[in-house]
Amino acid sequence: MMQPAAIALGVRLRVLATGPDESAAQVIPDVALGAHDDPQAVLAFARSCDVITFDHEHVPTPVLERLIELGVAVRPGPGALVHAQDKSIMRERLSAIGVPCPQWAHLDDSGDGVEGVIARATEFAKEAGWPFILKTARGGYDGKGVWRIEDAQQLREVAQGAATRGVKLIAEALVPFTRELSAQVARSPHGQAVAYPVVETVQREGICREVYAPAPGLDADRSAEAQRIALTIARELDVTGMLAVELFQTADGALSVNELAMRPHNSGHWSIDAAVTSQFENHLRAVLDLPLGAPTPQAPVAVMANVLGLDLPDVYPAYLHCMARDPGLKIHMYGKAVKPGRKIGHVTVLGDDFEDCVERATHAAAYLRGEIDE
Amino acid sequence: MMQPAAIALGVRLRVLATGPDESAAQVIPDVALGAHDDPQAVLAFARSCDVITFDHEHVPTPVLERLIELGVAVRPGPGALVHAQDKSIMRERLSAIGVPCPQWAHLDDSGDGVEGVIARATEFAKEAGWPFILKTARGGYDGKGVWRIEDAQQLREVAQGAATRGVKLIAEALVPFTRELSAQVARSPHGQAVAYPVVETVQREGICREVYAPAPGLDADRSAEAQRIALTIARELDVTGMLAVELFQTADGALSVNELAMRPHNSGHWSIDAAVTSQFENHLRAVLDLPLGAPTPQAPVAVMANVLGLDLPDVYPAYLHCMARDPGLKIHMYGKAVKPGRKIGHVTVLGDDFEDCVERATHAAAYLRGEIDE
Repeated sequence: MMQPAAIALGVRLRVLATGPDESAAQVIPDVALGAHDDPQAVLAFARSCDVITFDHEHVPTPVLERLIELGVAVRPGPGALVHAQDKSIMRERLSAIGVPCPQWAHLDDSGDGVEGVIARATEFAKEAGWPFILKTARGGYDGKGVWRIEDAQQLREVAQGAATRGVKLIAEALVPFTRELSAQVARSPHGQAVAYPVVETVQREGICREVYAPAPGLDADRSAEAQRIALTIARELDVTGMLAVELFQTADGALSVNELAMRPHNSGHWSIDAAVTSQFENHLRAVLDLPLGAPTPQAPVAVMANVLGLDLPDVYPAYLHCMARDPGLKIHMYGKAVKPGRKIGHVTVLGDDFEDCVERATHAAAYLRGEIDE
Repeated sequence: MMQPAAIALGVRLRVLATGPDESAAQVIPDVALGAHDDPQAVLAFARSCDVITFDHEHVPTPVLERLIELGVAVRPGPGALVHAQDKSIMRERLSAIGVPCPQWAHLDDSGDGVEGVIARATEFAKEAGWPFILKTARGGYDGKGVWRIEDAQQLREVAQGAATRGVKLIAEALVPFTRELSAQVARSPHGQAVAYPVVETVQREGICREVYAPAPGLDADRSAEAQRIALTIARELDVTGMLAVELFQTADGALSVNELAMRPHNSGHWSIDAAVTSQFENHLRAVLDLPLGAPTPQAPVAVMANVLGLDLPDVYPAYLHCMARDPGLKIHMYGKAVKPGRKIGHVTVLGDDFEDCVERATHAAAYLRGEIDE
């Protein structure tokens, strides 16, 4: 989704992809094949680029540090990116700069093995309460690597599983949130930043299903607070490019940070069709140190619904129906192989009426998924 | 500019390009090299495609007819496309279906050589008046192949030049137009059509410089008339894909057809950023026989200004200035080698205020061209 923005600006993208069938490799002519965690592949690729950026956060820090030693512009830099890679480092830092977070604790194996981890988690739960949350410090995604721990037996199972896989855990209090929000900002190396409208994200089974832009009923002060949190994090962590701050909101309106993403993020896909400058264009502008574009919405309401993989082998008949039913739909399909639950596309609807936009977007997403027969 | 729309829809483009540096070849991974008028190259290319379409009108009719014999879907078909290739055939047909045209005449060499052409043109001018217009029936572009004939001597020069090059001419009355409009429609093979808002195009030295969407002050009846003309032409000529009908408007408001283009057209570039469905997406939908998208504008006013080639070797410093001055600019650069007068990009501005949009778009286009130093 970066390529359309790059085409408009006349910016040439090169992509390092693990295979020619990856979405980006399908639409960018200049493809190098290689793994993002293979230092040789990344270094060889980077030498031919003016700036390196990412569509995920999994390139190892030492590889990125080596790139910087070689004089490659890496944006965001590894010192920022590590906060989106490691939840333990992220919580430490956000707490230090005064950003609201759920109560949390390191559970690192301090030489005392899995029993030490379990003991520290139990201690944490005494204060934070049961049930609580265990998360892998690294590598979680779409609900994977997150467990709601109900009792001591489940704690032991998860801790032992993590120890077996050599995975570090952190503990977090269960936040009794009433909804989830996302605050996105773009920030450039010289420090300019712009804040997108704060959106509501609707998750089911740990996967984002819908995004409402702007978040319905969010009062102006709370919206400004969410934007300030995101701008503060971007500045303090020296983020370049897009930053998404995923937030919990509780019944009293209070906000706390759930996760960070330092790249264009699913919660900002609405901006492709419904903002003056999309998150992809602003990510490019930011990493190229160009002035940022207006994040202004083009309509009072935009609703984005993800299309999840189910079993629709050919999208063409679904296109016929969806496009005929609703000429205002903006359909995006990623050319990904369909796997159950995988995000294979999204649909955005702009309008004046919230309920109408939700109905149109969710109907189309369900239809494109193959959930609706008639 | 078709590629961003194709990426969103998950449609894979292949392009037949004369060289790897052509704009389309720079951004589409699947490139076949060959000339559009080389039957072998076009036939070999077409065998691997589901549908063939065009970003110019210069593929020879016999080549397209051969494709159809081989079962290739060619959209628009040669029977429609010839009306955008040959002004003589276009005038004949539009006159037959009652579409308003300037007074015109064939001047074909009927075996009586250049003297016959001059005699017929002189006869035409007796009725239509001096000065009048000579046009090459085929191959004109951006003011090339069009002459305003002031007197008999100039007539002789142009007629002899054309005869030397074996080029056919037609004569047209000089229309005392006060402005030029463009009416664009998309039409699919099963006959669905949508009409975009009628726009005003501002030409200087035969080259379109600005487009105002919608045409300022165009009354609703006249706008509907222009749309009806375009829809009638699309239906009667069995056009598939985008059709642009360039129109003259005279002081009394009356309309007459100047030229036709059967492809996404410069006068519709505003729609990329300022319509729910861009002309490129609707061209793709139409040639794939998918239901068409809404051509609805996203803002009360959109102004598009072309960036013409001058002498700006590197666009980056100009980007810094333009983007910092105006975060709402939508900049599009085509990756074309810069030649004086060549369209190398465009800028679109959306807003509520016409004068403000014109100032912002034209300033940016001039700056990107290198016309403004400060």
